[in-house]
Amino acid sequence: MAKSCTLDELAGLVEGEVIGDGKLLVSGLNGIEYAVAGEITFITNAKKAGQLAGCKAAACIVPLECDELNLPCIKVRNPDLAAALVHNHLLEKKFAALGVLQPTHIGKDCRIPGEVTIGPMVCIGDRVKIGERVTLYPGVVIGSDAVIGDDTVLYANVSVADQSIIGKHVIIHAGVSIGSDGFGYATDQNGNHVKKPQVGNVQIDDEVEVGANSCIDRAAFGTTRIRHGTKIDNQVMVAHNVDVGENSILVAQAGIAGSTTLGRNVVLSGRAAVAGHLHIGDRVMVAGMSGVHGNLMQGSVVGGIPAIDVKKWGRATAAFSRLPEMLKDLRRLRREVDKLVGLIDSTGEETEREGEE
Amino acid sequence: MAKSCTLDELAGLVEGEVIGDGKLLVSGLNGIEYAVAGEITFITNAKKAGQLAGCKAAACIVPLECDELNLPCIKVRNPDLAAALVHNHLLEKKFAALGVLQPTHIGKDCRIPGEVTIGPMVCIGDRVKIGERVTLYPGVVIGSDAVIGDDTVLYANVSVADQSIIGKHVIIHAGVSIGSDGFGYATDQNGNHVKKPQVGNVQIDDEVEVGANSCIDRAAFGTTRIRHGTKIDNQVMVAHNVDVGENSILVAQAGIAGSTTLGRNVVLSGRAAVAGHLHIGDRVMVAGMSGVHGNLMQGSVVGGIPAIDVKKWGRATAAFSRLPEMLKDLRRLRREVDKLVGLIDSTGEETEREGEE
Amino acid sequence: MAKSCTLDELAGLVEGEVIGDGKLLVSGLNGIEYAVAGEITFITNAKKAGQLAGCKAAACIVPLECDELNLPCIKVRNPDLAAALVHNHLLEKKFAALGVLQPTHIGKDCRIPGEVTIGPMVCIGDRVKIGERVTLYPGVVIGSDAVIGDDTVLYANVSVADQSIIGKHVIIHAGVSIGSDGFGYATDQNGNHVKKPQVGNVQIDDEVEVGANSCIDRAAFGTTRIRHGTKIDNQVMVAHNVDVGENSILVAQAGIAGSTTLGRNVVLSGRAAVAGHLHIGDRVMVAGMSGVHGNLMQGSVVGGIPAIDVKKWGRATAAFSRLPEMLKDLRRLRREVDKLVGLIDSTGEETEREGEE
Repeated sequence: MAKSCTLDELAGLVEGEVIGDGKLLVSGLNGIEYAVAGEITFITNAKKAGQLAGCKAAACIVPLECDELNLPCIKVRNPDLAAALVHNHLLEKKFAALGVLQPTHIGKDCRIPGEVTIGPMVCIGDRVKIGERVTLYPGVVIGSDAVIGDDTVLYANVSVADQSIIGKHVIIHAGVSIGSDGFGYATDQNGNHVKKPQVGNVQIDDEVEVGANSCIDRAAFGTTRIRHGTKIDNQVMVAHNVDVGENSILVAQAGIAGSTTLGRNVVLSGRAAVAGHLHIGDRVMVAGMSGVHGNLMQGSVVGGIPAIDVKKWGRATAAFSRLPEMLKDLRRLRREVDKLVGLIDSTGEETEREGEE
Repeated sequence: MAKSCTLDELAGLVEGEVIGDGKLLVSGLNGIEYAVAGEITFITNAKKAGQLAGCKAAACIVPLECDELNLPCIKVRNPDLAAALVHNHLLEKKFAALGVLQPTHIGKDCRIPGEVTIGPMVCIGDRVKIGERVTLYPGVVIGSDAVIGDDTVLYANVSVADQSIIGKHVIIHAGVSIGSDGFGYATDQNGNHVKKPQVGNVQIDDEVEVGANSCIDRAAFGTTRIRHGTKIDNQVMVAHNVDVGENSILVAQAGIAGSTTLGRNVVLSGRAAVAGHLHIGDRVMVAGMSGVHGNLMQGSVVGGIPAIDVKKWGRATAAFSRLPEMLKDLRRLRREVDKLVGLIDSTGEETEREGEE
Repeated sequence: MAKSCTLDELAGLVEGEVIGDGKLLVSGLNGIEYAVAGEITFITNAKKAGQLAGCKAAACIVPLECDELNLPCIKVRNPDLAAALVHNHLLEKKFAALGVLQPTHIGKDCRIPGEVTIGPMVCIGDRVKIGERVTLYPGVVIGSDAVIGDDTVLYANVSVADQSIIGKHVIIHAGVSIGSDGFGYATDQNGNHVKKPQVGNVQIDDEVEVGANSCIDRAAFGTTRIRHGTKIDNQVMVAHNVDVGENSILVAQAGIAGSTTLGRNVVLSGRAAVAGHLHIGDRVMVAGMSGVHGNLMQGSVVGGIPAIDVKKWGRATAAFSRLPEMLKDLRRLRREVDKLVGLIDSTGEETEREGEE
């Protein structure tokens, strides 16, 4: 259950201005269609103010341009951000350590603080260092020599391989694989593939989130790295030796091939992919389902397979459905021009047909 | 092992007509190339009757137009459906409850009937309600306040998060994640992403099947919903607040972005994707690997990225490989037309070249 | 830790020639940027010899054309392959059997050799046969009647369903599903889907590797087969009744629909997909993100959706971004040709406009 706060307190949190009774207590945040009495809701756009008519919320976070609403409001510049901050604040609660629940296997020479919630049915290898207030859900398996930072949560059935280093305030959702072998083989003259040992590791920095059933492979040599604040959705694939910069966003089913580096605040939309051994600059955005085959300068916005400037791609895809018609037009023009050339020839003019290139 | 039934009994089940000895007993159904003595097989098309020559099956389910086969038959309108019904009937067996196998962790205030098969190595949270004849394979983790309906099967290492509601006769395959957090962030002026708490849940209705390693995320607010009879293949991604209508089919590696709703009997072919906040009407079919970027009326059949009418898409892709040739033709025509214009100009006619638009 | 070997010993292993002190001992292999004193490194191309300047390695594996390096070398024809062989040799160690760690559940009538490492938190069904020197990481679940060959490793949270047969020297990474039901339904006249029982199994031959969170479904009837030496990356989907030939490579997020067969040494690049009921010949290569919709002869190299000859596809995608410009050109030509036709008409020539086809 959420705690209760006054509008004044919440407004202070988000640099907002209270319109109405600042002493009003709210005890939760909810979407307009779900909010019940005592909760605060939010609209991200003044045009949505009309939707508040039937809403039971006690108060609303609104954009600056909103006026004369029937309920107490907190006016802010960025209502989406303010709602997230308020919601987190209302849900915030003290970590409740349940300790190590049995059966759970803990290897030799591990460092496990008292204030954790681990298990049951968790397996931890040897020499693992677990941070303060860590939560390991059932089915989590952690390999030897791994490190899990303070306040990190690993959900059910997450697999973390040997030597992986996971930072603080990291959230890893169900079924994720961290540190499985990268995909590397040398092929002999008979077409047999010889495995290249994958002896590097994975390092995930603070404040990263990884969605369900995603995979982040260990490096061949060195480290596969996910940097501070990057958020990864479900079923994303990050190959060996990739380095993803700070605060990047990898939407569901995206993929990054081996040794590619991403700058900071890069966005790979749903199922976008980047080939191997490339560098993708800061703030690049790749449209959904697109495939990047070359390096990209910072700030590029691209789409398509292979990905090109997103505006160019948009115009090209719009023209694409007209291809059959264009082909027909072209043939018709060809015939007409041939006829014109013939006519002019027959009038005595000297003309010369150009040959095929 | 399958039980034994007479052809008469099976024909009754599928509204078929027995040709031959209706008292003949068969004890299993198998494909033509695999069937052994005593089993029944099936062909879905009269043209395949020739394949029965070397088949060891004792009987065959055939389409109405089949005649004069060398073995006893059950004639039906839809042999594919009849074979499925007969196969299920022959395999049907009484649920064998093994109880709760140890070690298994069960939280506080759960409702677990006597007739179940749970574990070993299963973890169930607090206040979970398990239905009659439920089977939970090893490695299943169920969060608190979840509900699992009668006759439902969860295979190995399935993760079901808090508050998820799963109906009756549901099958969830290995490694699936139900109820992990949706992917939602608000970004501040420094490019840092603030997590939006995902406080909704997932509801899966009766008769749904979910393939291995698929993910169905919990709603931000409210419920992510998979409706009655929908079948989901492996590695499919269903984002937060999606609502999939009855009897839809989501083939492997398909994806649906947040807040999109699908009507009933929608088909997303393999790796098809639908963007967020859209409505896809009843009976829409999306070709494999296609990406839907707009709302679709019921009955639409679309393909491509972005998806367009599937026939238009087929014609456009056929023309696509001719693009380089078209480009060359166009350049040649340009030159010839320029020459013609020049010739006519030089004959004294007044012509005017149109400028670039 | 790696063992120590002389350059002479390693050169013998890879049919290489030692340049320098053949008695020199090295105790590990590492990439140029990571190698420390006492390790051997490698370059795959003589042009990279310059990078060795700042490298701390004691020796280097080099291509035949390399000359006059400042450190002892092993010259080989294929340095990439030689490095893999040397690395594996240096890492090789005797299998250390830890036995069956508790808690682990083992069903009835299983065959478990003494020299294995199983568990903890592993579940094995009835009548399972485990080979010599098998390693089952925590969270592995193996169904009844399965077979696991000698020297095979199943990483954390792998799910192997009933009747699956896994060969020798197989590596299966975290979260993989082997033998989940194929996706098959018959649909009745009301649009309800009736499950077709999936009564076949999966067979994985020797020396296969399967990446994290991949899925290989059991056959409807018969067997889904992955043949000797094939390497599968993460998040790959192999549907029921597929047969993948020897030494094929399926890169991350690739997918193969039901009943398709692949020859030997086929390469599906990242996220390539093949539709169902096709045959893909030996040594076919499919470009990343491409979709194959028809049979392919051996040696074909294809790309695109649907996939066409890769060179044709390359030229077509290059022309694709010029589509809007082509459309504009075509319209302008149309107008000019119409004008020319009009001019010539007005000069008394007989011309006839061709109608639409």
